[in-house]
Amino acid sequence: MNRVIPADNGHFGPAPGLEIWFDFGSNYSYLSVLRIEEAARATGVNVEWRPFLLGPVFRDLGWSTSPLLAHDAKARYVWRDMERQAARHNLPWTRPSRFPRSSVLPARVALIGADQWWAGDFCRRVMRQNFVEDRDIDSPEPVSEALEGLGLDSARILAEANSADVKARLQARTEEAQRRGVFGAPTFFCGPEMFWGNDRLDEAMEWAAAST
Amino acid sequence: MNRVIPADNGHFGPAPGLEIWFDFGSNYSYLSVLRIEEAARATGVNVEWRPFLLGPVFRDLGWSTSPLLAHDAKARYVWRDMERQAARHNLPWTRPSRFPRSSVLPARVALIGADQWWAGDFCRRVMRQNFVEDRDIDSPEPVSEALEGLGLDSARILAEANSADVKARLQARTEEAQRRGVFGAPTFFCGPEMFWGNDRLDEAMEWAAAST
Repeated sequence: MNRVIPADNGHFGPAPGLEIWFDFGSNYSYLSVLRIEEAARATGVNVEWRPFLLGPVFRDLGWSTSPLLAHDAKARYVWRDMERQAARHNLPWTRPSRFPRSSVLPARVALIGADQWWAGDFCRRVMRQNFVEDRDIDSPEPVSEALEGLGLDSARILAEANSADVKARLQARTEEAQRRGVFGAPTFFCGPEMFWGNDRLDEAMEWAAAST
Repeated sequence: MNRVIPADNGHFGPAPGLEIWFDFGSNYSYLSVLRIEEAARATGVNVEWRPFLLGPVFRDLGWSTSPLLAHDAKARYVWRDMERQAARHNLPWTRPSRFPRSSVLPARVALIGADQWWAGDFCRRVMRQNFVEDRDIDSPEPVSEALEGLGLDSARILAEANSADVKARLQARTEEAQRRGVFGAPTFFCGPEMFWGNDRLDEAMEWAAAST
């Protein structure tokens, strides 16, 4: 899926890639998922979508829920920080009435679409359902709506999403995240170089742009 | 200690203030302590130094050490991130051979100096001892050296640092941090508005500059 762009040496080569590992339930992932393709276009970097599930990662780290909620002071801070960060990036924001939301079905669909033309659009639509429209994203109705809004065959894609193959692939993807040292989301990789958090998106993008 | 600068309305008023709450043992505090006065000069903001102790804060949150070290994957990431962040800000960096280091004595001295002309210089010197020279900062020798390098009477100041009054003030300062919702360092306050982490220094400074 790499586009071919001119490299600095005058030869043509694959565009540099930046992987974004994210969970649709993660609020800081929301900011990065909405921002990343615009940033990538400006720098000629290829976005590589890596949906995974934070739940098993957190459980293996000994956390029963998001570490953002483990202490009242931190939770209060994070919700205020989200208001400010969304405003800084000119993004709409509604604090979800349930957090963190389960995100298994949209993650499976995003896995199917990761290499398709609709990956970015689909991911942004689901993120807006969770963090702007305050809707429960882990059910067929909102996911179908997001797919149909893109002119896609939602019945076919949802059937594939519920296949044993896609379930296994999402589990393997989550295990890959753990092997590579992911402990939160969003996380960006440019080759072995790892960047954690929406606060590192710009730096990760610069790193990728310089890694042709 | 507020300087008087012209406010937007043409009247003279106190300079806006930004509090930096930090621990000399905290690696991300190192970055902010070294950067903050230069950023403040550029914006006309008054730095208000708030040394405190992270240890009691972490203990009350149920952590026996820095949460950066609680999981291998996160610790590995943080040390790599520190290399990159220091390079981005053109700051020297040595990963300390002991982390987190105890910081009680320099914190007491910084509390004494917080409203003095030497506050920023002293704090930067101690931070460099820990995170560049890899020295144990919680002992009289490095602290005296930092004070004498500024032409100060280290014997008098160290005696004051060991007084019951200063001990009680540092404890009260740490309790104030907890009351105000501090859960890590550096933390910045502009009035009630709280910003956590070196990644928020620029945003906090902008907020303070706009709050005349």
